[in-house]
Amino acid sequence: MSFQYLNPRASPKFKDRYTTKADESRLFYEKGRKGDIGVVGLPFSKSSISFSMASEAPKTIRKALGAFSTYDGSRDRDFSEVVWLDYGDVQTHPTDLEETLHRLKQSVTDMIDTEACSRYIVLGGDHGISFPSISAFQKKYGRVGVIQWDAHHDLRNLDDGGRTNGTPFRSLIEAGVLKGEDLVQIGIRDFSNAKAYSDYAKEQGVRFYTMGDVERQGLDAVVAKEIERLKDKVDIIYLSVDMDVVDQAFAPGCPAVGPGGMTSRELLSSVATASRHTLVKAMDIVEVDPSKDVRDITSRLAAHVMMRFMYQ
Amino acid sequence: MSFQYLNPRASPKFKDRYTTKADESRLFYEKGRKGDIGVVGLPFSKSSISFSMASEAPKTIRKALGAFSTYDGSRDRDFSEVVWLDYGDVQTHPTDLEETLHRLKQSVTDMIDTEACSRYIVLGGDHGISFPSISAFQKKYGRVGVIQWDAHHDLRNLDDGGRTNGTPFRSLIEAGVLKGEDLVQIGIRDFSNAKAYSDYAKEQGVRFYTMGDVERQGLDAVVAKEIERLKDKVDIIYLSVDMDVVDQAFAPGCPAVGPGGMTSRELLSSVATASRHTLVKAMDIVEVDPSKDVRDITSRLAAHVMMRFMYQ
Amino acid sequence: MSFQYLNPRASPKFKDRYTTKADESRLFYEKGRKGDIGVVGLPFSKSSISFSMASEAPKTIRKALGAFSTYDGSRDRDFSEVVWLDYGDVQTHPTDLEETLHRLKQSVTDMIDTEACSRYIVLGGDHGISFPSISAFQKKYGRVGVIQWDAHHDLRNLDDGGRTNGTPFRSLIEAGVLKGEDLVQIGIRDFSNAKAYSDYAKEQGVRFYTMGDVERQGLDAVVAKEIERLKDKVDIIYLSVDMDVVDQAFAPGCPAVGPGGMTSRELLSSVATASRHTLVKAMDIVEVDPSKDVRDITSRLAAHVMMRFMYQ
Amino acid sequence: MSFQYLNPRASPKFKDRYTTKADESRLFYEKGRKGDIGVVGLPFSKSSISFSMASEAPKTIRKALGAFSTYDGSRDRDFSEVVWLDYGDVQTHPTDLEETLHRLKQSVTDMIDTEACSRYIVLGGDHGISFPSISAFQKKYGRVGVIQWDAHHDLRNLDDGGRTNGTPFRSLIEAGVLKGEDLVQIGIRDFSNAKAYSDYAKEQGVRFYTMGDVERQGLDAVVAKEIERLKDKVDIIYLSVDMDVVDQAFAPGCPAVGPGGMTSRELLSSVATASRHTLVKAMDIVEVDPSKDVRDITSRLAAHVMMRFMYQ
Amino acid sequence: MSFQYLNPRASPKFKDRYTTKADESRLFYEKGRKGDIGVVGLPFSKSSISFSMASEAPKTIRKALGAFSTYDGSRDRDFSEVVWLDYGDVQTHPTDLEETLHRLKQSVTDMIDTEACSRYIVLGGDHGISFPSISAFQKKYGRVGVIQWDAHHDLRNLDDGGRTNGTPFRSLIEAGVLKGEDLVQIGIRDFSNAKAYSDYAKEQGVRFYTMGDVERQGLDAVVAKEIERLKDKVDIIYLSVDMDVVDQAFAPGCPAVGPGGMTSRELLSSVATASRHTLVKAMDIVEVDPSKDVRDITSRLAAHVMMRFMYQ
Amino acid sequence: MSFQYLNPRASPKFKDRYTTKADESRLFYEKGRKGDIGVVGLPFSKSSISFSMASEAPKTIRKALGAFSTYDGSRDRDFSEVVWLDYGDVQTHPTDLEETLHRLKQSVTDMIDTEACSRYIVLGGDHGISFPSISAFQKKYGRVGVIQWDAHHDLRNLDDGGRTNGTPFRSLIEAGVLKGEDLVQIGIRDFSNAKAYSDYAKEQGVRFYTMGDVERQGLDAVVAKEIERLKDKVDIIYLSVDMDVVDQAFAPGCPAVGPGGMTSRELLSSVATASRHTLVKAMDIVEVDPSKDVRDITSRLAAHVMMRFMYQ
Ligand SMILES: [Ca+2]
Ligand SMILES: [Ca+2]
Ligand SMILES: [Ca+2]
Ligand SMILES: [Ca+2]
Ligand SMILES: [Ca+2]
Ligand SMILES: [Ca+2]
Ligand SMILES: [Ca+2]
Ligand SMILES: [Ca+2]
Ligand SMILES: [Ca+2]
Ligand SMILES: [Ca+2]
Ligand SMILES: [Ca+2]
Ligand SMILES: [Ca+2]
Repeated sequence: MSFQYLNPRASPKFKDRYTTKADESRLFYEKGRKGDIGVVGLPFSKSSISFSMASEAPKTIRKALGAFSTYDGSRDRDFSEVVWLDYGDVQTHPTDLEETLHRLKQSVTDMIDTEACSRYIVLGGDHGISFPSISAFQKKYGRVGVIQWDAHHDLRNLDDGGRTNGTPFRSLIEAGVLKGEDLVQIGIRDFSNAKAYSDYAKEQGVRFYTMGDVERQGLDAVVAKEIERLKDKVDIIYLSVDMDVVDQAFAPGCPAVGPGGMTSRELLSSVATASRHTLVKAMDIVEVDPSKDVRDITSRLAAHVMMRFMYQ
Repeated sequence: MSFQYLNPRASPKFKDRYTTKADESRLFYEKGRKGDIGVVGLPFSKSSISFSMASEAPKTIRKALGAFSTYDGSRDRDFSEVVWLDYGDVQTHPTDLEETLHRLKQSVTDMIDTEACSRYIVLGGDHGISFPSISAFQKKYGRVGVIQWDAHHDLRNLDDGGRTNGTPFRSLIEAGVLKGEDLVQIGIRDFSNAKAYSDYAKEQGVRFYTMGDVERQGLDAVVAKEIERLKDKVDIIYLSVDMDVVDQAFAPGCPAVGPGGMTSRELLSSVATASRHTLVKAMDIVEVDPSKDVRDITSRLAAHVMMRFMYQ
Repeated sequence: MSFQYLNPRASPKFKDRYTTKADESRLFYEKGRKGDIGVVGLPFSKSSISFSMASEAPKTIRKALGAFSTYDGSRDRDFSEVVWLDYGDVQTHPTDLEETLHRLKQSVTDMIDTEACSRYIVLGGDHGISFPSISAFQKKYGRVGVIQWDAHHDLRNLDDGGRTNGTPFRSLIEAGVLKGEDLVQIGIRDFSNAKAYSDYAKEQGVRFYTMGDVERQGLDAVVAKEIERLKDKVDIIYLSVDMDVVDQAFAPGCPAVGPGGMTSRELLSSVATASRHTLVKAMDIVEVDPSKDVRDITSRLAAHVMMRFMYQ
Repeated sequence: MSFQYLNPRASPKFKDRYTTKADESRLFYEKGRKGDIGVVGLPFSKSSISFSMASEAPKTIRKALGAFSTYDGSRDRDFSEVVWLDYGDVQTHPTDLEETLHRLKQSVTDMIDTEACSRYIVLGGDHGISFPSISAFQKKYGRVGVIQWDAHHDLRNLDDGGRTNGTPFRSLIEAGVLKGEDLVQIGIRDFSNAKAYSDYAKEQGVRFYTMGDVERQGLDAVVAKEIERLKDKVDIIYLSVDMDVVDQAFAPGCPAVGPGGMTSRELLSSVATASRHTLVKAMDIVEVDPSKDVRDITSRLAAHVMMRFMYQ
Repeated sequence: MSFQYLNPRASPKFKDRYTTKADESRLFYEKGRKGDIGVVGLPFSKSSISFSMASEAPKTIRKALGAFSTYDGSRDRDFSEVVWLDYGDVQTHPTDLEETLHRLKQSVTDMIDTEACSRYIVLGGDHGISFPSISAFQKKYGRVGVIQWDAHHDLRNLDDGGRTNGTPFRSLIEAGVLKGEDLVQIGIRDFSNAKAYSDYAKEQGVRFYTMGDVERQGLDAVVAKEIERLKDKVDIIYLSVDMDVVDQAFAPGCPAVGPGGMTSRELLSSVATASRHTLVKAMDIVEVDPSKDVRDITSRLAAHVMMRFMYQ
Repeated sequence: MSFQYLNPRASPKFKDRYTTKADESRLFYEKGRKGDIGVVGLPFSKSSISFSMASEAPKTIRKALGAFSTYDGSRDRDFSEVVWLDYGDVQTHPTDLEETLHRLKQSVTDMIDTEACSRYIVLGGDHGISFPSISAFQKKYGRVGVIQWDAHHDLRNLDDGGRTNGTPFRSLIEAGVLKGEDLVQIGIRDFSNAKAYSDYAKEQGVRFYTMGDVERQGLDAVVAKEIERLKDKVDIIYLSVDMDVVDQAFAPGCPAVGPGGMTSRELLSSVATASRHTLVKAMDIVEVDPSKDVRDITSRLAAHVMMRFMYQ
């Protein structure tokens, strides 16, 4: 009879026996354990240009998964069997930012070297984490194509501030990790970039679509077309989702919010479209700063982005 | 001259002589007094699965009516003559939740037994209040058809937690108050339900429409079609509006917010469509938790739902 | 049986039959009705130098009374028999501030002309309301002594901005309503005033005590001494309590907060000391801005100030 | 070497050498200096019917410009050469509201009399500032056409409260400054106005479009049609943008928020459409109350409204 | 080299090798494991009279321990060897409050029946949890003396609302679990209780001290005197710390805040005084509602109360 | 007549001609300009162990000075003639923290090399800035004595995290800039440090006083005694005020808040005591994180600390 209502290691939470919450299909990684999706957190945002607590997002996004279930009503399918393996969050260094970048890359490498899963999600952190993350994937898998949802190019020069959250794709291109032509940028917004970087993108062959382009061509169509273009050139496609691609009314918890962005539905639908392709094996979600959010709605949206990727 | 600027019983508020605010056409119920719409508050949310102060909503929604006028510009009609009779809020019991459910049902019965109005609005509270409320209407009026705006089925089993806000329609069906086929659910969302309850809905003949269905078929069309289907079978149609059917960006003040829901305009238009039908005699509005809201925008939206129902 | 749990005019609230909350001994003023303490709200703060919503305080302070009981445990006395008559809040004018000052004075006059109570409380608003309020009392009762709890002199010149919340006592002195020697200022704070106004206070014979003076001489002693001095000169003593006399940690909801002020206990004890004297017949409480408060603690403190005045 | 990292007069801010932020193309007005757009702030909202800190908006909107760049990606054009001349904010009077209205008009006059720019932006404040502002433009330029984005007519009678933020266009019409037929109102919302004022608008020949009209006819089409109608009658067209025309989910920082309004994109697109016409020489932006906002998103939207006007 | 920076089960946190945080000396209870202090959470506040999320406090108080170290500088002693055994939090029932009370008592019984520790801490929850908690201790250990820090008597009648957070000590006395003379109440506040309950306390022989008594007699002296009085009569002394005994400025996160209470230092010093006595074997901490707190300062204070009890 | 109410470069603010606000006696440093107190901001907190926006404090503290006047009522002295020279805030580097430490030291050196003032204030930032700041002073002035108000020793080892805000005095001692015996630490708090660092302090001859010591010996007495001890040994005394020495109720805006600290009055009085000594020529104020504050009360307190230093 005793210890019926107490479990020293678990938080008590209401459980409906017929419902599986998305955080219930998580297992913690252990040597030898297999899963479907590997998840790692890169809680790093000290190199953001503006002040950011995006380092807190891996925690809040995981928590938000506990508010949703594994059942997709539209397709009448339950994904409770899809296991996500949690590799935890990387320990960063308080003052040595270079060391931290090294740790991030090493830890993503550690995760994918386990070969325990077929697909992976990397939770930022600011967009700066895409540099070490994509570098790790490229080293393991070969040529990488990237589809970046973002209001910004993130192709700033490296001299004015070093490797900030405004530079990851510049860093990748300059380091030879990523070819410009293998990078697709979707949702680029007016009054949020500079001509010099738009020009750089063109020089490097980066394919980018402004919000106006997206409105005219259709978001799902753009995604489908670009995957088609990439699929014979690259070994793996990596989705990089900067949540500020979404309008500030739908994603208030991003450091660089502004009007004129996508709706939540547009983002979710296009991520689902992309995730259905077999080459798409990795995704990062970045630029969610929970301290700036309203009712965690940006983290909840990020959790749905995860589910759209995982549950295909 | 004296007491020109003081009224001991009323809060001083700016008054434009040509404008009628929606709270100015309220009368407090007294024996023998008649009105158009009866309104009662069921300030109860202790049986919510997650923590909820939806019990505060009857106050904030009424207050929000004071921010809007009775004039519908689109139709160039002023509804200042439409009187809503306020029956007040039910006194709940601090610790005896069964007793409280009894009081809620008795009080709704008390209201409709006055026969002072032709239509009624019940302000929750969490969705658990629909069980006693619809039970009271069914007893008075006979067979009830229900149109439920909701992201969730609310058909959970009663064993895991008793009569919570996740169970009202299960309770109604099991108690024989409501036939499954007389229940229409609109706005059911992905990753927000369980397969077991979707299956239960189908077994019981519940008609439900996911957000995907709604997008394909059109929300107003769905509502019109279902009222047409119900109208010869039932004696009364009751609208049950769970505000979490609306997207989290438009209704942040609900306990169970998430992305991918309706817009405000979609909800308001479909409620108006339904309210025009003469069989539609009752409505509840539930799951507004003012303590979680931003600038009371969810209560304001609920006030507009009330006005769309009242001003037809 | 019916309408057992519904009262259309009253908010349902838990009631313990043996406890009287301080808002339960309120009656609304009606012609001919008598009480012990008359209370009127002057919801005006548009003339504040800095932005202020002190106009909301009459509502929040009254509400705070509902959180406390009429029983003073220290003296083992229950004051549930002490009736406070609520005269309501003055209707102000949106754009004509002179007209509003007129209404405030007229309404205080209306209240005291009822002669329904022996003592009165005036709830501001900003400190500007003391000018019309004290003027009304002076006209009715004759020579007025004022004890002002305040971090500031409130003796600013009238040329730079007119009758703001920085000028009430200057206005009263210049209008001949109040003699400088009949004004006592307690809690004057460093770095919160100007030498010119300190000099003006001295010229006019105002007695003022800085926080340093208060620490050295004792707050209760200062109050007792000054009442003794005033008692044979004046017809009535009026307490004017600017809540910013209290330290910002204890009263964060004042527009002009700062460190180095009184504690809550010091304020309450000294108000009680003053209120015991029979000449003390009126009090105002000003400069509570509920929009800036934390958990309404400043309004709660103001409610205790009211109770210390009422329950002697 | 010394003073390399210190600049006593400027706030240190990260600078990317290839990016121009919209606040970097500002110059402060000095005698003789020329620019493209003149900007003045009218920080006044004391005459608002409901409580408003819209007087803070000139500061927050200017600051929001610092979050965006001068580069319009859709058109691949950089507007860093477009100089906006900042004339500062008007010093208002704490208690004399008539005097303040005089100062507002005089200051707008002062600005346009410099003839230093070809177009002007006036930052409110509440909508009451449009009365002095438009009066100044009319006196300088002759017959004025006004396109007003607003949920409300703002044609209230002047007897109930004087010149509040509900009356500017009534004041203008009654003062003979503006002809009814030269006023276009877009976005008028249900349950937000009174029949009397709708009737008044019709009597005066005001052209107004409800949200329903806008949905049916298209917002850009309405704007284009009305500019076409006005262009041969008036000497100048003035845009008056009350941000509450936008839905509460997109512009939570307005005093009178409600559901059923425009999206951000709709507002921005229609302002851009209007701003392309050469007769459009002035704009005001009003009713942003930063104290009620969420993450400054309403101020950010207002900054984009400015940029859509400036960068054509 | 691999997995150097990743630990799937632990949150990464900065670690100084020479510092032990108070949460680092926690072990989770397992069968057979021993410790010094047993800690269990009773996350229950649904029976509060006013709305309360005190059920969240066990989480926030434990987390607050992570902000402090085990080193007491005043005594130059490090308590890193003192192990607290965490038994977890009780699973409550969503709708059956009687069942929940049963679970709370059973779970406290489960904990103390392990006999794994010599002293115990029970984290509420609202004060209602003291009824099942003290009942469990009394059954195990015999006659219980209770020292209650509280602004309130908590001796309300059980008819008006059942077993709320206003009744635990009434329930204990009426159930014969606790003798009135074995109950000591410290910090009882004016205008926060009713004469009827003060009278009841006297009839039952309860020893209570108002804030005035405390000021006159000294808090530590009162505690010492009462422990001396109890020590030969009872088998165990249980401390019941209602955090609202502290002034609202120091403990804003309590549901029933008010002015005139203890300072933090007074509470901590008196708890330390009591905890030094060997008969003092148990403590509960109640009425911390983290949702109402400011910067978790009330939870932090509660963590210090825990440390003062543990580290003697 | 024109431009009477507009000043393009200044924010309009109410001005009382007889009052000088503490920000009005500021001049911006220019070559050759002299003043009394030099002030520089070191807006750096990226090296904080826990997340900190203390980098925003130089702005908010300066702004808080605008809320207070230069008149000290206790001494009846106006300090409006005391000029503080503002050297601005140092431009930090987004990602190179070593470079930033270099810039901080260089900029403090730049300031004091101007020899424009006799005393200096350095506004942090986190406590990490004291390492470069004190280093600069030591190089210029010779042997430095430091009086540190702090709940913490800040003597952590440098291996676990590098030069964080927990290490400045360790860094100074190890670099030979500061002798242990020349360091005085006041307000050290229980459960906030580690034995290893207390031991290190003793080994190095650091004089430290816990809150218990302070209560027993008197804060002003401790300060006076230690200045007496230092005065013949050192060339300059530098005050380092970590605002977390104050209790969390009085200074909620510090990253590491906790109970049991000083009151505001105690801090202010002891800083005044110290500042009167002629050897005291410099002060830093650190660990104010405005994003965590309540009504800026911690910044306001910091402004008073500045005034107590400046106005002696
Ligand atoms: Ca990005
Ligand atoms: Ca971005
Ligand atoms: Ca529901
Ligand atoms: Ca729902
Ligand atoms: Ca005052
Ligand atoms: Ca004052
Ligand atoms: Ca308007
Ligand atoms: Ca409007
Ligand atoms: Ca209690
Ligand atoms: Ca209590
Ligand atoms: Ca420190
Ligand atoms: Ca510290």
